[in-house]
Amino acid sequence: MTTREGYRYQMDGTFSEGLPCPAVISPRANLPVSTSGIFDVIVVGAGYAGLTASRDLCKSGYKVLLLEARDRIGGRTYTANIDGHLYEMGGTWIHWNQPHVYHEMHRYGQTRMSNSNDEKTGCQSFTACFGGEKTSMSHHEEELMVGKAFGEFCNVDGMGGRLLIPYPHDPHQNPDVKYWEAVSAAQRIDQVKHLLDDVQLATLQAFIAAISGNTMQKTGFFDILRWWALSGYNVSGLYEFTETHKIAAGQSAFARCFFDEALATGNLCFSFETVVSTVRSFGNKVMVSSVSGQKWVAKRLVCTAPLNILSKVQFDPPLPPVKIAASREGHVNFGAKVHLEVEGSYLRSWVAANWSGNRVFSCRGDGLTPRGNTHLVSFGANSESGSPQEDAQEFVTELKKIQPMHVHQVVWHNWLEDPFSRGTWCMFSPRYSFRYLDALRERHGNVLFASGDWAYGWRGFIDGAIEEGCRAAKYISDELGLSKTVGASL
Amino acid sequence: MTTREGYRYQMDGTFSEGLPCPAVISPRANLPVSTSGIFDVIVVGAGYAGLTASRDLCKSGYKVLLLEARDRIGGRTYTANIDGHLYEMGGTWIHWNQPHVYHEMHRYGQTRMSNSNDEKTGCQSFTACFGGEKTSMSHHEEELMVGKAFGEFCNVDGMGGRLLIPYPHDPHQNPDVKYWEAVSAAQRIDQVKHLLDDVQLATLQAFIAAISGNTMQKTGFFDILRWWALSGYNVSGLYEFTETHKIAAGQSAFARCFFDEALATGNLCFSFETVVSTVRSFGNKVMVSSVSGQKWVAKRLVCTAPLNILSKVQFDPPLPPVKIAASREGHVNFGAKVHLEVEGSYLRSWVAANWSGNRVFSCRGDGLTPRGNTHLVSFGANSESGSPQEDAQEFVTELKKIQPMHVHQVVWHNWLEDPFSRGTWCMFSPRYSFRYLDALRERHGNVLFASGDWAYGWRGFIDGAIEEGCRAAKYISDELGLSKTVGASL
Repeated sequence: MTTREGYRYQMDGTFSEGLPCPAVISPRANLPVSTSGIFDVIVVGAGYAGLTASRDLCKSGYKVLLLEARDRIGGRTYTANIDGHLYEMGGTWIHWNQPHVYHEMHRYGQTRMSNSNDEKTGCQSFTACFGGEKTSMSHHEEELMVGKAFGEFCNVDGMGGRLLIPYPHDPHQNPDVKYWEAVSAAQRIDQVKHLLDDVQLATLQAFIAAISGNTMQKTGFFDILRWWALSGYNVSGLYEFTETHKIAAGQSAFARCFFDEALATGNLCFSFETVVSTVRSFGNKVMVSSVSGQKWVAKRLVCTAPLNILSKVQFDPPLPPVKIAASREGHVNFGAKVHLEVEGSYLRSWVAANWSGNRVFSCRGDGLTPRGNTHLVSFGANSESGSPQEDAQEFVTELKKIQPMHVHQVVWHNWLEDPFSRGTWCMFSPRYSFRYLDALRERHGNVLFASGDWAYGWRGFIDGAIEEGCRAAKYISDELGLSKTVGASL
Repeated sequence: MTTREGYRYQMDGTFSEGLPCPAVISPRANLPVSTSGIFDVIVVGAGYAGLTASRDLCKSGYKVLLLEARDRIGGRTYTANIDGHLYEMGGTWIHWNQPHVYHEMHRYGQTRMSNSNDEKTGCQSFTACFGGEKTSMSHHEEELMVGKAFGEFCNVDGMGGRLLIPYPHDPHQNPDVKYWEAVSAAQRIDQVKHLLDDVQLATLQAFIAAISGNTMQKTGFFDILRWWALSGYNVSGLYEFTETHKIAAGQSAFARCFFDEALATGNLCFSFETVVSTVRSFGNKVMVSSVSGQKWVAKRLVCTAPLNILSKVQFDPPLPPVKIAASREGHVNFGAKVHLEVEGSYLRSWVAANWSGNRVFSCRGDGLTPRGNTHLVSFGANSESGSPQEDAQEFVTELKKIQPMHVHQVVWHNWLEDPFSRGTWCMFSPRYSFRYLDALRERHGNVLFASGDWAYGWRGFIDGAIEEGCRAAKYISDELGLSKTVGASL
């Protein structure tokens, strides 16, 4: 099956929009002819938050209607299967120390992982590129160098952040956090740059840009520090927890497990390619309307619309101003994730940080394709203008300035132009979380809000989306009371 | 409410059996008059594996009967509330990097933690005691010293175990494991002792004994190595993940969340103080009988009887010989966990390792009581003979040889003599897991087996018990097919 989403550009000039993807749901809806008044809960959005909420609620006996604007499940995660190789177009990396996602991986027997790192094949080297200069080193030297850079950057308390954030899943617990939450990555770099040499400083900024998808000024220092704390307050953890292990079968196979289990309860109705326009809460009910004029009613609604598009949905009564402001300001991650297939296996164990120009921030080996070529994944910025074809060519040109390579194809998804995301994973700007996080998590009438964009723990990760979907389902389940169930007959 | 279990000995000679405990279930059963043929699943055992399985199955719409020999939930974990202070009598420490337990803590809003460590109050020192010698040092020196000792002990591959066990939740993946799985802690110590000084060697053995509850000869090296790998392959992780963070409200409050949620579905029947004697599997059914002659029938049964008592249950048809042998041989953790209230706050930040005699292996501050005294927790061996009073006196005498202290009371549970556990948390002897682990996890007719004692990941931990309960419930749910449910009416 093929999703309408994603781009593939082969360097011979062949371009296609739409990628082979096992997350596409067909037929696109299973709605009975008459659907008035039969739902307990409507879930808007079939990313991991929506899938988790739907699955939990269906298992608890509630009749659920899942509405999704796309033609597929997974939201900001999906797997493209191209020539027998899996490309993760969005959220990718998971770890057994991410509690919510690993719990589900175990539950679905999806614990087999593949490793983006391969320290055996190819060049086994790291390249730092900045201001026209290039430095190469071994991965061991890289880890020490990056460890020093992030170590100084994150050492806010003489204990590597451990005193400031003792509980990384409850990061605001310590009141001292308030000062650091207001600081930008740029301001923090100013505080520590005298401790770092040029390579360390360039690599630090390149990797922060890869993490945040925005400038040092727009990046909240605290969100980088949270990643650090969640990863065990050290750089090997940061690498291991956030960009090493992938689900071997692919994210879309994993997402299907949630969907299929919900469906098997007999309690799930769904409608894909269904864009929600308005949500009206009244009495003990909520009514949702799609842009094509369909309407459904339920007792509760779980809205998983990503932060950057939440304000596009019309609520009645209107959302509180603080919630609208939070969505309009949005998170700042406008980064690009670009896959490349390049000739041979030499770059399989290559990692690069680039702090020159503004297209490419990082690049690394991510696998070997069945043809024996290297799958590279690169994080950078989206093109300001031009066609997707020009975008791909420009990206490749920039990448070749770091390292000569023979590129066969480029595969990517422009999450910034995507009307259903307007950005990638969540990264907050300075002062954002104290102003908006609590408001984003609050219910509004009969509407609950669940998204990895306002998770407490691994915010912006698949783990955070599952955390939130679980929270919403539990809340509704507790509130609506007993699920009346009939045991299967003996 | 008071459980019949546990001992309290005050040094004025007052002795009592039974402790105030919020895990006691009253009334002890909620069985309807006629219960023939109405259950989908019978769950034997109300520890975390049984509670998780019951909760998941009830939520999925199955009618569940939960049978428990004790008067309380929690199995080898329960909280005694004495004079307003919580003592965790069994399993205690949890961490956000233990995926199954943290997922549940989040789900139940039980993420507030208290910290056994307190590096601010009192002496802030570590004592190593061995062969009549005593050495004291700061906790920083302790961490370096213990880091060196465990670092050498666990460095089987030049990479601190990372190459041998790259996936700690799937520890047998690498075939090289087979050699190390057959090695005892004693044999491994022989391999590395030339790298360690006397203090390091004594502390290493004392801490291994505290972890395994048995001799170095009986302790499988591989199970210690698994703890190390799960903890991030370093000693600060080993401390942080396995003996630092407690659920602030107590384990029993947490366990109640599972029980109460299952009960609220309306699908849970239960009977406490009900000892199962036989389990008979026939056709598509299973019949269970209690020692008092009650009988119940269901489609499936989840047996969560701990490894060391599994062979006491009579199965028909009989369990395969390998499963019986696994239970008879059992795991080797016969250790004692002893709480003490001692005068003043001086020892709040004290940690000790003791490799002299055979009663006390480790001791550490665990909290301050409302009276301002120190709560110490000590791991050691059970008394070979004598009354509980003599046991407590002997333990205190041994402890005072390490450090003078004024003891007010001793609170403990003899898990070795407990007929429903016959040991504490699971530790395998050399060659055990390759012979028995797969067999222990296998179904037997209509009976599934779930216990933290044969979990793949955090085996012997609360996390592992939840892992297993979840596995059994998912398996049964998939096998019995759709849960037919009726949404609550609009």
